[in-house]
Amino acid sequence: MSADPIRIQLINPNTSVPMTEKIRATGQLVAGPGVSITAVCPSKGPSSIESHTEEILAAQAVVEAIGEAERASGPSPDAHVIACFGDPGLDAARETTGAPVLGIAEAAMHAATLVGRHFSVVTTLDRTLGRAEDLVLRYGFERACVGLRATEVPVLALEEAEADAVAVITDSALAAVREDRADVIVLGCAGMTDLCQTLAEATGVPVIDGVAASVGMALGLVRMGTRTSRLREYAPPKA
Amino acid sequence: MSADPIRIQLINPNTSVPMTEKIRATGQLVAGPGVSITAVCPSKGPSSIESHTEEILAAQAVVEAIGEAERASGPSPDAHVIACFGDPGLDAARETTGAPVLGIAEAAMHAATLVGRHFSVVTTLDRTLGRAEDLVLRYGFERACVGLRATEVPVLALEEAEADAVAVITDSALAAVREDRADVIVLGCAGMTDLCQTLAEATGVPVIDGVAASVGMALGLVRMGTRTSRLREYAPPKA
Amino acid sequence: MSADPIRIQLINPNTSVPMTEKIRATGQLVAGPGVSITAVCPSKGPSSIESHTEEILAAQAVVEAIGEAERASGPSPDAHVIACFGDPGLDAARETTGAPVLGIAEAAMHAATLVGRHFSVVTTLDRTLGRAEDLVLRYGFERACVGLRATEVPVLALEEAEADAVAVITDSALAAVREDRADVIVLGCAGMTDLCQTLAEATGVPVIDGVAASVGMALGLVRMGTRTSRLREYAPPKA
Amino acid sequence: MSADPIRIQLINPNTSVPMTEKIRATGQLVAGPGVSITAVCPSKGPSSIESHTEEILAAQAVVEAIGEAERASGPSPDAHVIACFGDPGLDAARETTGAPVLGIAEAAMHAATLVGRHFSVVTTLDRTLGRAEDLVLRYGFERACVGLRATEVPVLALEEAEADAVAVITDSALAAVREDRADVIVLGCAGMTDLCQTLAEATGVPVIDGVAASVGMALGLVRMGTRTSRLREYAPPKA
Amino acid sequence: MSADPIRIQLINPNTSVPMTEKIRATGQLVAGPGVSITAVCPSKGPSSIESHTEEILAAQAVVEAIGEAERASGPSPDAHVIACFGDPGLDAARETTGAPVLGIAEAAMHAATLVGRHFSVVTTLDRTLGRAEDLVLRYGFERACVGLRATEVPVLALEEAEADAVAVITDSALAAVREDRADVIVLGCAGMTDLCQTLAEATGVPVIDGVAASVGMALGLVRMGTRTSRLREYAPPKA
Amino acid sequence: MSADPIRIQLINPNTSVPMTEKIRATGQLVAGPGVSITAVCPSKGPSSIESHTEEILAAQAVVEAIGEAERASGPSPDAHVIACFGDPGLDAARETTGAPVLGIAEAAMHAATLVGRHFSVVTTLDRTLGRAEDLVLRYGFERACVGLRATEVPVLALEEAEADAVAVITDSALAAVREDRADVIVLGCAGMTDLCQTLAEATGVPVIDGVAASVGMALGLVRMGTRTSRLREYAPPKA
Repeated sequence: MSADPIRIQLINPNTSVPMTEKIRATGQLVAGPGVSITAVCPSKGPSSIESHTEEILAAQAVVEAIGEAERASGPSPDAHVIACFGDPGLDAARETTGAPVLGIAEAAMHAATLVGRHFSVVTTLDRTLGRAEDLVLRYGFERACVGLRATEVPVLALEEAEADAVAVITDSALAAVREDRADVIVLGCAGMTDLCQTLAEATGVPVIDGVAASVGMALGLVRMGTRTSRLREYAPPKA
Repeated sequence: MSADPIRIQLINPNTSVPMTEKIRATGQLVAGPGVSITAVCPSKGPSSIESHTEEILAAQAVVEAIGEAERASGPSPDAHVIACFGDPGLDAARETTGAPVLGIAEAAMHAATLVGRHFSVVTTLDRTLGRAEDLVLRYGFERACVGLRATEVPVLALEEAEADAVAVITDSALAAVREDRADVIVLGCAGMTDLCQTLAEATGVPVIDGVAASVGMALGLVRMGTRTSRLREYAPPKA
Repeated sequence: MSADPIRIQLINPNTSVPMTEKIRATGQLVAGPGVSITAVCPSKGPSSIESHTEEILAAQAVVEAIGEAERASGPSPDAHVIACFGDPGLDAARETTGAPVLGIAEAAMHAATLVGRHFSVVTTLDRTLGRAEDLVLRYGFERACVGLRATEVPVLALEEAEADAVAVITDSALAAVREDRADVIVLGCAGMTDLCQTLAEATGVPVIDGVAASVGMALGLVRMGTRTSRLREYAPPKA
Repeated sequence: MSADPIRIQLINPNTSVPMTEKIRATGQLVAGPGVSITAVCPSKGPSSIESHTEEILAAQAVVEAIGEAERASGPSPDAHVIACFGDPGLDAARETTGAPVLGIAEAAMHAATLVGRHFSVVTTLDRTLGRAEDLVLRYGFERACVGLRATEVPVLALEEAEADAVAVITDSALAAVREDRADVIVLGCAGMTDLCQTLAEATGVPVIDGVAASVGMALGLVRMGTRTSRLREYAPPKA
Repeated sequence: MSADPIRIQLINPNTSVPMTEKIRATGQLVAGPGVSITAVCPSKGPSSIESHTEEILAAQAVVEAIGEAERASGPSPDAHVIACFGDPGLDAARETTGAPVLGIAEAAMHAATLVGRHFSVVTTLDRTLGRAEDLVLRYGFERACVGLRATEVPVLALEEAEADAVAVITDSALAAVREDRADVIVLGCAGMTDLCQTLAEATGVPVIDGVAASVGMALGLVRMGTRTSRLREYAPPKA
Repeated sequence: MSADPIRIQLINPNTSVPMTEKIRATGQLVAGPGVSITAVCPSKGPSSIESHTEEILAAQAVVEAIGEAERASGPSPDAHVIACFGDPGLDAARETTGAPVLGIAEAAMHAATLVGRHFSVVTTLDRTLGRAEDLVLRYGFERACVGLRATEVPVLALEEAEADAVAVITDSALAAVREDRADVIVLGCAGMTDLCQTLAEATGVPVIDGVAASVGMALGLVRMGTRTSRLREYAPPKA
């Protein structure tokens, strides 16, 4: 296993290079030995994914990033992570490749239920909560998820890690623990990945960042030799 | 990370030493570098867990195994796995230690939903299906799980890996794919851990063994530094 | 029917003899003519059941109490009641005997839905609410149950029937009526059995004590000649 | 309690006097000492309730029967039972009187879940299954109920207890056990009340007749002193 | 289509002639060219439908109004609307005629989900909320409906369009937007039909009146040539 | 209303011009007087939408078609219909314009529940059933929908209206009525719009084509003056 690392590609579907680097750093941190992490983002498209319209573009970017990685010379990634909390293009990605693909919302919600009973999501804009609600239902967590909380901190404000943004997010997480009766917090944006430790200390409960969670779960699937089912729904689409 | 491996303890709550060894072998296989796997079982109690009554004894054995490991000299396990498909004692285990604890039914069901839309569980005795149904609901997979299938192969017959048992289990998995429209199979017993590869080949769909799945997920949580929430429900119980 | 009364055994799975006597008194009060009520508790084990860990011990005590009663000389009980709001060991008890077995949480929740649309549970410690939530779902009352309220009054404080405890519980019940919009209150602990009348007067809505409710339902089943199904799940376990 | 029996009124909302007598007989059989059972039916209206249109007339008959009994000289009934499987007029009845009112579908479904995990309903005409489905959902038993089976035996054919009708019903119950995996059978018509024992013997699983079940549950509520909540929904309607 | 208009009959099941006229006016307003709207009400019965007991009488009135219209000389209505928010007699009406029948609660809830994610119902008396809850569940909108709000303004007070009543209803709608997070409001009474525009202006979100919504949906079904399924449940009842 | 018709734009997101014309024809047929129907399709992109990957392209095409229509000179459409059964881009479309937007899966499922209790969807390829399942859940019809049936007839084969294709689709619809117990059939592809009448005759139950259904519902919303809520989720996205 030494000469041939497990390769995990993190796909940030917005164009922010600093956010992509932040995502890569988290991935590397939790990957453990024998794992190679890469992170990519599209060269054009929206700078943040905060609407259904942008989500379509993000989905397109995700499918393209997987296709490019698979067509590139050298070994293909063993797994892919969609590093955007709406999990854009997840179903299409699972058609595109047999390698496991995880969304960070998906991974974060799964992980949250492994360390507590009730989680709340603390996220960016109110307008994204509908998509979050759809994902909660799609993944089966309508009883585990006790709150979806918008902070109205836009995605790009997170990159600056402004003190104000951190304070607002912390307040929202504390309110989730107190009012929603959450015993776990899920971070609702890839751009919050570097706030995880700070929030865990401030709230005293586990705080789950989907970037970190998805790398761990993807690695587990790769080591098990488990790939996406290609029967029926996720068979390769017609050319 | 070289000198201080991540320690994962697998707890088989029945008294079968060969099954315990089989479980340990699977754990070691998927653990990757820098991880130390141990597997334990109680010295007395039921030789297999196939009823609600035996499940109570299994739950007791799980809590005791965690307590013993934590009180032992040397470093405590970083995570625990309950290697019995009924996930006996899972809630109590999460009270007993802050280290992550996963059940293999839980881990297998979560993993199954990451690589397909619909899974069926192929398990041992019909009488255990009620417990499986409770777990499906507890974990939120009532839409993802499309079948619970008993083979009437008892747990201990699995240790002998009789050709007959394998044929019956294979037939059940094939029927799940065809009749339940499952695109993923979940193995419903820790004692089936060594059949995973055989069944995947026979069915052409991903086959998830909870022992393997739980090690990967536990590792991920440990590397994230995430521990069980001790707020409210999973706080340490009174002495 | 005169010479041969219907026998109902109430099982308090904690060691408190006064609470056991209180439970028996309630049972006797609602039993009507031609019924013999007995109440038992274990001689060792936890003095109250307020955690998942204690619940395992309680489950064990329940199964043993049923086994002892069935092995004793003289007629066996015609039905059993598990007088602890977590309904510990209920599934195992139904394997152990064909005589009907009811949990008091189960009986109380069923009864509540017969006299109103929405109930809230008023119980002891916050840490027990997870178990209550599981039971609500198991029994199908996720729409009928509109609140789970912890008072942080420990089980054993109830035995002293302190004025303070009563006031706190009354306040919680009133809040349930007002804020949860409950039109029925369910008492969340066998030790509250003697507060039922007081709370009904204070709130003006039906207040259901599971000890009383379970005796009535058990009697009904016995008079119908209905016993637990022994097909599949609740067949006797292997010895 | 000797001089003043508990009074339970069974209301058959169709005009069949023999069916009313059959219902009364079952009620008396399971009532136990100290209980007085009466059974009434309207003098005009449909001879059987097998459509939504007839259900409206049945609902009207139920409300009138309760009103008449409450206005009559002498003590009012302590509880009422709606002896028709559609539970017609149940909500209106709970507005009309504070005495507990139970429907036989309601009581049968509740009882079924106390002695097994999964029940199927075996009933008369296919066209009534929609109403049964609504009731299953209203009472919270959508997971417990695994089958709704019509025999196409009309209600009035049951009064003749024709061998053919019994054979068809028995076959349906056996199919429910085998194909739906029911471990309990619920009889879907008051007119089947006298088939309960025969079917239990034929199937080997508990068979629940709602007439019997409702009497037991009603008695329990009366002995507890529990009446319908008059807060909000079930307050008396305007005159 | 010019000589033979589409005929839609609106049935107000209470005896208020002014309310019936108000309902007809709304129907006419939204019907478009080529459509003939009639509105009827019973000559005796309750003056408003605000309890389960009155709902039975309303159901009876609905079935009779459809029967009368179908037996009258001249062309029968092409569709019927039940203009009372409890949708009384809807299932029976679908047995009575093959022409489409819609309830205004049904139509309003459906329409609400077409223009937003979450709706709250603003209605009259608290005691009617149970029925509304049943309808939400029956129609499948338990996730879309985020609030049921009673104003305690009785139905008949609406006819006077008192300023006070309008203010209370407006406050309730505003609270629904703010506290329930509704993005659409559903009016919970046919008598509110003339407040729709006022409330839409006051709240800034779509406000759905079921009278208007049902006319549009009924027209659509008629133009498609779609009638109620007469297979099984909605076949004509026995005479 | 004579000089200024209501304008409804049907958007076929695949490139098939004949299918677009077929869709327009259906729309015109059910629109009634005073309504102008247009139908558009993209000039490039997939010729049919039969995978998640193609659905992303379809979503993009839908958003673009709405934007073009709104930017064009002359009056904008009063409502839009997405004429593809996956309802691609529906949420994004609701951000793009305040005019009502309906998907044909959405409209068909809503309409089906207005004329029966249980519907089955008869559609093209098995691989599209996952998306259909997601939509059923999103719209709240998980109890109303009793079957999702793939015929393996590809979308483009429908344009040829081959006898074979019609026979296979008819058989599937008949099986849905018989085996799923559907009393209504929903056509699962815009390309089936011309089979509606044939299938209704063959099955004897209502058959719902979403193109027709959506035009009726859209018209109703327009005549009510109801537009999409622009509060929160469906506010215009950032440029």
